[in-house]
Amino acid sequence: MHDTDLEEHCISSEVIASGGMLTVKRDQVRLPSGHQSQREFVIHPGAVVVVPILPNGNIVFERQFRYALHQVFIELPAGKIDANEDILVTGQRELLEETGYSAQHWVKLGHQHPCIGYSNEVIHIYLAQNLTLGQHQRDEDEHLEVFELSLAQSMQMILNGEITDGKTIVAMLFAEKYLMQHG
Amino acid sequence: MHDTDLEEHCISSEVIASGGMLTVKRDQVRLPSGHQSQREFVIHPGAVVVVPILPNGNIVFERQFRYALHQVFIELPAGKIDANEDILVTGQRELLEETGYSAQHWVKLGHQHPCIGYSNEVIHIYLAQNLTLGQHQRDEDEHLEVFELSLAQSMQMILNGEITDGKTIVAMLFAEKYLMQHG
Repeated sequence: MHDTDLEEHCISSEVIASGGMLTVKRDQVRLPSGHQSQREFVIHPGAVVVVPILPNGNIVFERQFRYALHQVFIELPAGKIDANEDILVTGQRELLEETGYSAQHWVKLGHQHPCIGYSNEVIHIYLAQNLTLGQHQRDEDEHLEVFELSLAQSMQMILNGEITDGKTIVAMLFAEKYLMQHG
Repeated sequence: MHDTDLEEHCISSEVIASGGMLTVKRDQVRLPSGHQSQREFVIHPGAVVVVPILPNGNIVFERQFRYALHQVFIELPAGKIDANEDILVTGQRELLEETGYSAQHWVKLGHQHPCIGYSNEVIHIYLAQNLTLGQHQRDEDEHLEVFELSLAQSMQMILNGEITDGKTIVAMLFAEKYLMQHG
């Protein structure tokens, strides 16, 4: 089957939520069958997640409360891409702001789409090595705890359900494969 | 830091989009600092993704157009949990509806949260073995193509960026670890 046999075409588009943090669109679409339907989805600027490798080989993680699920998650440093920002700069900025670390060596590992059913978000994945610790730039309303885990510990915590954040799991899959090859 | 030191408390809550496919809430919250802020997020019923293993060891995938990103994705069979539905039944129903396969042996591999920043979605991950092919139950408005890949092919396609769907990547990480242990 060709991609064009699966494609849906926009008939009209409206914004059904905006002004706050989330922009949500509702489009009327023409399906491949010729029938009409509607699609609703979140408009997202994209994000970058960083796997920061310490000199001892451990990885820098965060514990952060996530309101949508009302629980504390173990996550890698990550954040949204600012308007016109280069994605590498996003990674460097978020790592410094959230953890205080700067890195000399950055490797792009890949990208993923976390939520293809209802969001256009893409998450770019970087590995950061040769870390040096400076001063984090969290303000008093940004509450998170920074800590470290070994690669083996973090992979075990994914498999036993202690780490369930999708962007962190995907980034760790890429990081594990990379580190197996490059040490 | 204790979880309670990171927690945000709901002051008030409103629905800012509903009636279509997506329900979006906006809550006023009290931060740990005592300051007030707001959080917006999608309310989601949860979903199940299935890694279906064929008798020849290959895995059943789908090609499907996703409107939010306007591209065709390679995905594992998956779908939303219906009201009051057992998650195993969701997996069995979605696998049959989308691909025509039934499976005799089901293993729960884990779960993940794809989008903790703005959705309460959880995705449960199953492995399905001993497949038999019947008749799929897609209606004429459900357009997707079913095909198979080996484990090695699919892992390679994740690493080289041909498979970028987050739920599929996370499920394949769990499946690879499981199959390495159980064959």
